[in-house]
Amino acid sequence: MSKPVGIGICGLGTVGGGTYQVLHRNADLVQARAGRGIEVVHVGARRDNPDCPTGDTPVSRDIFDVADDPAVDILVETIGGCDVARTLVERAIDNGKHVVTANKALIAEHGNALFERAASKGVDIAFEAAVAGGIPIIKALREGLAGNRIEWLAGIINGTGNFILSEMRDKGRGFEEVLAEAQQLGYAEADPTFDVEGIDAAHKLVILASIAFGIPLQFRKVFTEGISKVSLQDVAYAEELGYRIKHLGIARRSDSGIELRVHPTLIPAQRLLANVNGVMNAVLVEGDAVGPTLYYGAGAGREPTASAVVADIIDVARGLDNPHASRVPYLAFHRSDLPAEPIVAIEEVETAFYLRMAALDQPGVLSKITQILSDAGISIEALIQKEPQPGADTVPLILLTNRAREGLLVKAVAGIEALESVRGSVIRMRVEPLDG
Amino acid sequence: MSKPVGIGICGLGTVGGGTYQVLHRNADLVQARAGRGIEVVHVGARRDNPDCPTGDTPVSRDIFDVADDPAVDILVETIGGCDVARTLVERAIDNGKHVVTANKALIAEHGNALFERAASKGVDIAFEAAVAGGIPIIKALREGLAGNRIEWLAGIINGTGNFILSEMRDKGRGFEEVLAEAQQLGYAEADPTFDVEGIDAAHKLVILASIAFGIPLQFRKVFTEGISKVSLQDVAYAEELGYRIKHLGIARRSDSGIELRVHPTLIPAQRLLANVNGVMNAVLVEGDAVGPTLYYGAGAGREPTASAVVADIIDVARGLDNPHASRVPYLAFHRSDLPAEPIVAIEEVETAFYLRMAALDQPGVLSKITQILSDAGISIEALIQKEPQPGADTVPLILLTNRAREGLLVKAVAGIEALESVRGSVIRMRVEPLDG
Repeated sequence: MSKPVGIGICGLGTVGGGTYQVLHRNADLVQARAGRGIEVVHVGARRDNPDCPTGDTPVSRDIFDVADDPAVDILVETIGGCDVARTLVERAIDNGKHVVTANKALIAEHGNALFERAASKGVDIAFEAAVAGGIPIIKALREGLAGNRIEWLAGIINGTGNFILSEMRDKGRGFEEVLAEAQQLGYAEADPTFDVEGIDAAHKLVILASIAFGIPLQFRKVFTEGISKVSLQDVAYAEELGYRIKHLGIARRSDSGIELRVHPTLIPAQRLLANVNGVMNAVLVEGDAVGPTLYYGAGAGREPTASAVVADIIDVARGLDNPHASRVPYLAFHRSDLPAEPIVAIEEVETAFYLRMAALDQPGVLSKITQILSDAGISIEALIQKEPQPGADTVPLILLTNRAREGLLVKAVAGIEALESVRGSVIRMRVEPLDG
Repeated sequence: MSKPVGIGICGLGTVGGGTYQVLHRNADLVQARAGRGIEVVHVGARRDNPDCPTGDTPVSRDIFDVADDPAVDILVETIGGCDVARTLVERAIDNGKHVVTANKALIAEHGNALFERAASKGVDIAFEAAVAGGIPIIKALREGLAGNRIEWLAGIINGTGNFILSEMRDKGRGFEEVLAEAQQLGYAEADPTFDVEGIDAAHKLVILASIAFGIPLQFRKVFTEGISKVSLQDVAYAEELGYRIKHLGIARRSDSGIELRVHPTLIPAQRLLANVNGVMNAVLVEGDAVGPTLYYGAGAGREPTASAVVADIIDVARGLDNPHASRVPYLAFHRSDLPAEPIVAIEEVETAFYLRMAALDQPGVLSKITQILSDAGISIEALIQKEPQPGADTVPLILLTNRAREGLLVKAVAGIEALESVRGSVIRMRVEPLDG
């Protein structure tokens, strides 16, 4: 058997500490799977982690010492963020080390340059942990579904957001209240913007889309809408219509290019994806040969994320002493073989829509509204009109439209909002049948 | 770019024909993913398939010509069965060719010998298509979850059986009637024994268990019980108790060894696995680090199975011109590094049980039954007692027990069946919470 593979872990927080512990606890299994020992030979961390004693493993306060250590074959980057992490990963690559990272922002925003650099040095960058935590979705897309033309994918890829929407639905609690609880439980950061405004999901979506479609990472082109405006009313109305609201990342091949979008979405209640609750993640992928497949699991957390990091370490280790280190291309495709694909502007995207508005309780209002929609070529699939509340002069009116180009719908909605008989703005949310 | 990889397809039926067509339709994507062209250079088939025109590709009536063709780098075996397929695969291996197969029986029953033979010749045998069709579950277990100690897995891994149980539940139709329809729809073979008696599922389970736990393939040790005795009554009672009946393959690590069993199982209705319907497959895997993950998709059919075959072809092609062809060990582990693990006899397995019996409508009957269970250390979690039907002298009595060793329960059931106040035999089915 070859000599053990030397691992350097940079960052000893949640993911770094979890990785250290899983590698130790499962050392025998990991060795039997990799065909050689895998040993943490160096840890870089600004401070000790009381939850993760490091025993005899050398610890440096300067993480760059790990990138320069000749005993390190694979550097594991778990410090997060883009600035220092990028410099660290570049240093490791330049030193001929393979890199395993859980850093979605780093890959989504700087991946193109990092992969080029790694290719020129003949080293691997593995990033399974960057998307959907412990779910091996990168591997499924890059290898398991490699025979397919991927048509679309849709994922619940932010656990905090899904926890909030699940609690709102199950317990009828408002967004702010659940968000506060999520922060208390440690799901959401003190600054929850990344989670609730969809930036975290956009980072992950851009990685999935790149691998699925063979397009460069283009984070700036993702259309992103958060969940902070989803109200309890809409959760209940969606339910009544047979739908659930999920915060989805969607990438879809269309005639005009690739759609990349993160937004609250109504999906039919009986779909598996609609039944993924709490902090769990799931990704639904439609391939031309395989049809729909779904991957479900914990999208974050200490050991689920470590599971993906360790799988990457084993993957790299299995390929060591191997002149073709990157047996699988970083982003699934050998890029030069593919034509460029445009990303579709959100105005050009076609979906069905859920619309909710407050209309005066008068004859003729509904006909004005439906006239505007019909003039725009948009027809109505379902309608709920509620009795007015005592003392209210408006009634809630809820519509499900058929599929329409977003640009057309936005114009029609502006027309509806301009009606004297409609008060305030029209709430709108996209609907996805997720059936093909 | 290297020269194209030569593919020889043996068998041009459902899977072989699907593979041929997916390779042609997606040739550009496949090439971009593999980094080189992948070309079918030889087809071996006893007769043409009108659904799959082969154009200029040379076709031999003797499949062994394909195994002897120097232009073939990878032989794809899709003829099925064990006898000819085994000889064919051996010939291909001996000729230094890599093998991709969709043949679950071949791998489950002869895999140990074939892998040894392949290892001695330095070639790959890939078999993703052998389990759960297009779902990349072999890859997930062998690579994606490689950092985990797998605790257990439970899968709906026979589409025909799941279709039958789904129809029984949804439409209240009996087993025989739905089976006849499944045969008409082409889901079930003329001889449906393999599907409904669980042999097909046992083949797949033994492969999954081997990869998950690092144990040899031991098909003869799987406990197998089919679905032909599941009645509409039990489907309805299960529903009333908050459960659904699924035909599961379960592999579980226990203190006394590995449990390997295929049987009808009650699972809580809200679990994702309980909501996998029709011919779809899904496998739930519990790893010590990642927790539960689930993989869902089409478990059979022309192109879903071809999806897995083509993924394997790309996997092998990505590793060609590579001295370490088997970067990933065939069954996930380098075997010599692992201690032997015993397979647990079914009598030693502990599960909860659903029991249904016909009891005389008399005082004291229930207390006799519960006394027998309690004497065996088995307690009762839930009980349904129905009103007697007009004219009937017995009432249906349904019990959910707590977890008990099967040997003890079987004895207690024999005691219950011996009671004068209980008529006929006691229906029993295992219950799995699937929660950890």
